[in-house]
Amino acid sequence: MLPLLMSRSLWNLRHRYPLTRRQIFRHLALPNGGGEFQSGEKTLVMQEETEKQTARQMYVDIGASTITRLPFATLEPEDIAFFQQLLPNRALTDPDVLASANVDWLQNVQGLSQILLRPQTVEEVSLILRHCHLRGLAITPQGGKTGLVGGGVPIFDEVIVSMALMNHIIDFDDWQGVLVCEAGCILESLMQYVEKRGRVIPLDLGSKGSCQIGGVVSTNAGGLRFIRYGSLRSNVLGLQAVLADGQVLDLMTQLRKDNTGYDLKQLMIGSEGTLGVVTSVTLLCPPMPVGVSLAYLGCTGFPGVLATLCAARSRLGERLSAIEFFDHQCAHLVHTHLGLNPPISGEFPFYVVVEMVDSDSHEDNEKISAFFEEVMEEGHVADGTIATTPGKVKTLWAYRERIPEAILRDGHVIKYDICVSINMMYDIVTATRQRFADRIKNTLGYGHLGDGNLHLNISLTTPDPTLHSDLNDFIYGWTAKHRGSVSAEHGLGVLKRHAIGYSKSSDAIALMRRLKNMMDPKGILNPYKVLPSEL
Amino acid sequence: MLPLLMSRSLWNLRHRYPLTRRQIFRHLALPNGGGEFQSGEKTLVMQEETEKQTARQMYVDIGASTITRLPFATLEPEDIAFFQQLLPNRALTDPDVLASANVDWLQNVQGLSQILLRPQTVEEVSLILRHCHLRGLAITPQGGKTGLVGGGVPIFDEVIVSMALMNHIIDFDDWQGVLVCEAGCILESLMQYVEKRGRVIPLDLGSKGSCQIGGVVSTNAGGLRFIRYGSLRSNVLGLQAVLADGQVLDLMTQLRKDNTGYDLKQLMIGSEGTLGVVTSVTLLCPPMPVGVSLAYLGCTGFPGVLATLCAARSRLGERLSAIEFFDHQCAHLVHTHLGLNPPISGEFPFYVVVEMVDSDSHEDNEKISAFFEEVMEEGHVADGTIATTPGKVKTLWAYRERIPEAILRDGHVIKYDICVSINMMYDIVTATRQRFADRIKNTLGYGHLGDGNLHLNISLTTPDPTLHSDLNDFIYGWTAKHRGSVSAEHGLGVLKRHAIGYSKSSDAIALMRRLKNMMDPKGILNPYKVLPSEL
Repeated sequence: MLPLLMSRSLWNLRHRYPLTRRQIFRHLALPNGGGEFQSGEKTLVMQEETEKQTARQMYVDIGASTITRLPFATLEPEDIAFFQQLLPNRALTDPDVLASANVDWLQNVQGLSQILLRPQTVEEVSLILRHCHLRGLAITPQGGKTGLVGGGVPIFDEVIVSMALMNHIIDFDDWQGVLVCEAGCILESLMQYVEKRGRVIPLDLGSKGSCQIGGVVSTNAGGLRFIRYGSLRSNVLGLQAVLADGQVLDLMTQLRKDNTGYDLKQLMIGSEGTLGVVTSVTLLCPPMPVGVSLAYLGCTGFPGVLATLCAARSRLGERLSAIEFFDHQCAHLVHTHLGLNPPISGEFPFYVVVEMVDSDSHEDNEKISAFFEEVMEEGHVADGTIATTPGKVKTLWAYRERIPEAILRDGHVIKYDICVSINMMYDIVTATRQRFADRIKNTLGYGHLGDGNLHLNISLTTPDPTLHSDLNDFIYGWTAKHRGSVSAEHGLGVLKRHAIGYSKSSDAIALMRRLKNMMDPKGILNPYKVLPSEL
Repeated sequence: MLPLLMSRSLWNLRHRYPLTRRQIFRHLALPNGGGEFQSGEKTLVMQEETEKQTARQMYVDIGASTITRLPFATLEPEDIAFFQQLLPNRALTDPDVLASANVDWLQNVQGLSQILLRPQTVEEVSLILRHCHLRGLAITPQGGKTGLVGGGVPIFDEVIVSMALMNHIIDFDDWQGVLVCEAGCILESLMQYVEKRGRVIPLDLGSKGSCQIGGVVSTNAGGLRFIRYGSLRSNVLGLQAVLADGQVLDLMTQLRKDNTGYDLKQLMIGSEGTLGVVTSVTLLCPPMPVGVSLAYLGCTGFPGVLATLCAARSRLGERLSAIEFFDHQCAHLVHTHLGLNPPISGEFPFYVVVEMVDSDSHEDNEKISAFFEEVMEEGHVADGTIATTPGKVKTLWAYRERIPEAILRDGHVIKYDICVSINMMYDIVTATRQRFADRIKNTLGYGHLGDGNLHLNISLTTPDPTLHSDLNDFIYGWTAKHRGSVSAEHGLGVLKRHAIGYSKSSDAIALMRRLKNMMDPKGILNPYKVLPSEL
């Protein structure tokens, strides 16, 4: 069941006008932008919307900002015919299909696309983009729609280019652990594929069952294993992408090192489909660790959490493969909303999950036990348990991995994903809790301790745009003051693009815009994403 | 003593015309490009050069190609006055200073610059570039001049912007191991600085005593620890650079994760000063390993080398910190030219150096011994020795680290730096040896086994441009056929820029050129480097 979250716009529309989502879609997606509602109740006119909509121009409210539709062409019958000929039975205009493709999984963003294309080859992607470029039609590349910032769904009537059917593994080099696959491969399928061959995918995400590798790369996703394997920027050895005009850019090297000219693939990694559509990826897959063990620890304060991090780094060194923390509030929700019983008795303000790997499994017990004893003896940790069998490791991981799910059941959720200096990473949780105590249901802090990456989540009883705006000002302002990132790993998409200025200088943003204009002069690639609108 | 190597151009000039280097400089650097030689022998006219040189246009031969001077402005007395006022006593025109700054350490490339600027602040770099941009003067950013492809020296009369005085450490975050420093810091100084604080710089290079971190980042240098710490692309957390028009681009974050917009710093990493001048760097420094041990192994064939790699990966896993190989020919030169005695008796076709690190020093002996026994028992290795004390580790490393020095004493050397699939990485050494046996003194293969990065070196008794050209065709052709990189870690500079097409498609090169034109429309930043000339 999807949580009942929606954008301010959608929420307003739903509450002011009792329409189904399909009706909303049919209304706003009218090519000529007419104000008349084309449902059974044909006489209904949405006055406010009509005033805004002049010919082929529409507005939506996303979060606190209003977005104006840019003057792209609109989909004509000739376009539909072209796509249907190019992609027989794979150029879909069925409203039910579109209803699903138009909304992200958090239901924060509601697009209005009238067509979903499902190419099977890079040549088809190229011809789609070539057509859209010539026609001035905007497109949204779509992966698993698991992003948290609305980067993978249309905002207006952009043509959706789904990568779902480009889901084949092309090659696997056992010797070097290099996987070559199409962009639409599901992360979890790839994990299973390489694990059978003694390798692991160098990142792990909660959304692995749905997210696609092309989307993961386009978002430069981080996840749970970042501390061990680092950024996708060094693990993606090569990629293939289609540029705005349909040109295929083949950078599919399988080499670990290549300093021949500018590293163009970096332009595609993390640019959220605004500079090109990633169609294939070459990924370095490290050897699968033989032994995995885990410690689940309760700490009486954040200084204890930090001391545990220090101890893990020095005691476990190169074996440390993940170190995560979450606060009591998160643990409480996992217990109450998901029914998971706490692994340790007693309640603590903070919990830390430490995972270590080793190429010699017989050493695990000693290593993790020695670490556990040390942090207990030194008083950093008040209680804990360790796991050295795959089953127990998985069970303990669940308390951390299922936090997002538990939070989503707590009401309307506002998610922040910030990166600051590690020793101050919990300060903003406390400050937010203090400042907004009377207006917030729960303030929750968890995240990737080793990277200084905090997931600050706020749950509310009902959506509150004013509070949302106040929270943005407070949290982003604090992050900027401490030279942090307002999006550590989620990207900017549409929901956070206007926050870019908190983490990047105006000069840097101006250069990004020049880059975008150079790569996509008509701006057709995933518009309204990453870069703020030009005011 | 520098080896007696020089470019075809310099060699031709020297041998055809008995001039000193200073005279060559004074001749070719004449602002108006006149053919008359302005030395004591004022009547000497270099006919061939005169024919080529029309007003403000000059040519040089680098390797097999002729380079035409682009129509940049030439340095006028007003420019010198401006620089001398901006940089009192740091805008140098002394011929002796310039003679050194104009030539790279391999003496392959001989520039003709008339001025060397030594800024101390980013503001000064900005004002220099602003002036050069307005005036249309070309510049060459210069670090430690240790590059192997002539990227750090001028080709014609480019203004040299030396980073040597911007050599201050700005900050070090003990907690996160984040070093902030200026671009001119010497790599070895930084290593010593962070090692005192329990950290290491995530790369190690033979040139560490001279190379500067700004140059290292601009080249995306690889080196000995790549297999453990990965590429600079993920270890450089932030940087500051000055763009072509003098704008300062501040990307000096200390964050491990930041997905707010395009990762602009990637444009600077590895672009060899052609898109901006790196002035400061923020570098992630991993914890210093407690124990380092090493195995020096002799193998009877390359299959044994590959099997040793497999065994090291599976047996040492996350502890493997370097794995290097070299052939008998390399070992022989280290012995004969440097006088180092072989660590093991008996001669073998191949040697492998395996370094492992551990956070628990007491385990080293067992681990490395177990590994050694395994590879001996399985017949991958015929003989070997292990080191577990810092002194012996350093002694054994010398046999690998001093190979380049030994080769340079073997005559005129042509260096290749290719990356291919690991299991075929030695094939090109054998093929080159067979094909060119009668024309070559020695063919030597060594490199970074774990990365598939081969340093193929050819020594000749005397320079032979025709042979050089034949070797390029053969070796680059083979590399392209196997989808390899013709420059794994050295970059392209001026010497290899015309080889880019062996590893990159024409579409990719065209996009690089668009990027260059966008970032530096007048082309003043390190011209004649990275991208081939437009024919």
